[in-house]
Amino acid sequence: MVTPWEVKGEIDYNKLIERFGTQRIGAELLDRIRSVAGDVHPLLTRGIFYSHRDMDWILDEYEGGNKFYLYTGRGPSSHVHVGHMLPWVFTKWLQDTLDVKLYFQVTDDEKFLFRDFDSLEESTKVGYENVLDIIALGFDPKRTRVILDSRLIHRMYPLALQVARRITFSTVRAVFGFTPSSNVGEIFYTSIQAVPCFLESERQGRNVPCLIPCGIDQDPHFRITRDVAPHLGYYKPALIHNKLLPSLQGMQAKMSASESASAIFVTDKPEEARAHVMDAVTGGGATVEEHRKYGGKPEVCPIYHHYAYFFEWDEEHLKEIYETCRSGARLCGDCKAELADKVVSFLEQHQERREEARQRVDEFMMTEEELLAPEPA
Amino acid sequence: MVTPWEVKGEIDYNKLIERFGTQRIGAELLDRIRSVAGDVHPLLTRGIFYSHRDMDWILDEYEGGNKFYLYTGRGPSSHVHVGHMLPWVFTKWLQDTLDVKLYFQVTDDEKFLFRDFDSLEESTKVGYENVLDIIALGFDPKRTRVILDSRLIHRMYPLALQVARRITFSTVRAVFGFTPSSNVGEIFYTSIQAVPCFLESERQGRNVPCLIPCGIDQDPHFRITRDVAPHLGYYKPALIHNKLLPSLQGMQAKMSASESASAIFVTDKPEEARAHVMDAVTGGGATVEEHRKYGGKPEVCPIYHHYAYFFEWDEEHLKEIYETCRSGARLCGDCKAELADKVVSFLEQHQERREEARQRVDEFMMTEEELLAPEPA
Repeated sequence: MVTPWEVKGEIDYNKLIERFGTQRIGAELLDRIRSVAGDVHPLLTRGIFYSHRDMDWILDEYEGGNKFYLYTGRGPSSHVHVGHMLPWVFTKWLQDTLDVKLYFQVTDDEKFLFRDFDSLEESTKVGYENVLDIIALGFDPKRTRVILDSRLIHRMYPLALQVARRITFSTVRAVFGFTPSSNVGEIFYTSIQAVPCFLESERQGRNVPCLIPCGIDQDPHFRITRDVAPHLGYYKPALIHNKLLPSLQGMQAKMSASESASAIFVTDKPEEARAHVMDAVTGGGATVEEHRKYGGKPEVCPIYHHYAYFFEWDEEHLKEIYETCRSGARLCGDCKAELADKVVSFLEQHQERREEARQRVDEFMMTEEELLAPEPA
Repeated sequence: MVTPWEVKGEIDYNKLIERFGTQRIGAELLDRIRSVAGDVHPLLTRGIFYSHRDMDWILDEYEGGNKFYLYTGRGPSSHVHVGHMLPWVFTKWLQDTLDVKLYFQVTDDEKFLFRDFDSLEESTKVGYENVLDIIALGFDPKRTRVILDSRLIHRMYPLALQVARRITFSTVRAVFGFTPSSNVGEIFYTSIQAVPCFLESERQGRNVPCLIPCGIDQDPHFRITRDVAPHLGYYKPALIHNKLLPSLQGMQAKMSASESASAIFVTDKPEEARAHVMDAVTGGGATVEEHRKYGGKPEVCPIYHHYAYFFEWDEEHLKEIYETCRSGARLCGDCKAELADKVVSFLEQHQERREEARQRVDEFMMTEEELLAPEPA
């Protein structure tokens, strides 16, 4: 069970490709990206961004001089964890490498409709907090425009209506698992998440390709959007999907705000986060002796996944971690301690940048005036 | 079958009261209105406004010094007929008599979602055209604020989301007859129509009673809104409902823009409208001889209904029309000719005022700035 709002049980990523009807990222596409971008991000070579829709087309257009723009986003919650940041880190790499624009959508309306907050004001407030994390990652405000739904709805609504007219209850029921007890706002909502896919085309008055880096769990929204697009005369958005970072508490466990030890939340006190890492489940042997004898299993180790997804970009060192774990030379305690140091140092730096970002929010927030003005092609 | 979008077959107004769970307007309430307003409008004494919800409460509050505000509206279409104007005429009377404010909602989003138009721009444009008819009726711009949905959505959306969270697909399916093939915008839409019920309370920061004069076919929206209201801490809106003016082509026929002879459209050429009146079905005898002998049936006569609903406010003369029809003294041809003259004179005057109104639209349209400013209590 994988929807944008619920991921239950261990995810079979191969099955998702089949079920959603996406394409696996293979060696050929990696070569293609390397040739266009001059480089490939480790999240690609490591198979973490592993699935896509129409990446070939996006690259064709780019090479032919027709730049795409990026679209990713955030459903505000008080608890951003590093798993949420994967697509943002990758998006930033794409933006920097290919010099493209980004729309970053903050869906405060969604999180109110789906009852994450009791009031829209709360949801909006947390949305602004989450924008700090984007800024802290070093995005360029000139090319990065944050769309806060409740703030820009005047401009988004006409496009959302066009989308809504083309989506039936049957469709959202089948794709998202809605029931007759779902509220009419939830049912409507995907129309809003579709808007940034078409916004740039509408602003420029010509079709502009759009590429969405996102967790594979968000794909259902855009599967619907892609079906609607041709009816509105727009390009289908292309997508590139990442696997989800597993919980510190085990490969099948859920990262959850109610389980503070399940993930590295960006607002954790660094020493608390260290403790969560030290308490994590690993893929190691039951005892030091067994581990030394049989080795560990990085493939099912949350700690190894945290290195590979976010905390270790050095390929050589990651390989060393993998091999010494497999051989049993590397003990879980040491391995966790090393990750914990990296986590603490990441959090210290991120939290400092995050506080500095408070002064810069306005630079990133798209205003209605800006959005109403036509975008130069 | 009566929903806000479809009225099929002859309407049994007594059954609707039962089915919708509204109250009949009886002699006692009429007396009460007379005592509060100093007068009663013929649409009340003639039983055309015949049903209500919570009118007693609205009058109690008014007498206790707590003024209500009025809310009515228009789903834009190119073809406003006099039947549409009934609630507006009655609303104006209430406004003038009781000195109360009116929100007039123009639902351009609705008419796009329900496929009356191929683009929202078209729907909006026709919405502005329809505002001319409001102005032509002589509303006071100081107390009459037009809410064009697409223009004010920024301010309406947060309230609409609050409503949407409280309405399930089950509910709109049961109330409006939606199916799995309904689009997600249609399903969401009633949340938007609910907004003006709460807008004044939100602006003033205190609960303000709201009274909605409307065709009985619009009641389903507000039945839902009334269920939601207490959960949001607002008063339930009160309603007063009119029966629908029958088609010129027969009591069971539908007034329809595709049948230009079915109704008096406010933009008809006066002489065309005259021809439609002269071609109308009547409640008269099959031949002049039979009519003279047995008399006519004003109760089932579209022509008589047009007098009673809109074109003859003189009680004495209406009574005379009724009685001479019943006795057979008044012949259908003469009766139609008299109505046709009234129609022509109404249209000439209305169309002149309507053209003058083009210069005054801005006086009536609520702006986002106005709506964002808190309303003084």
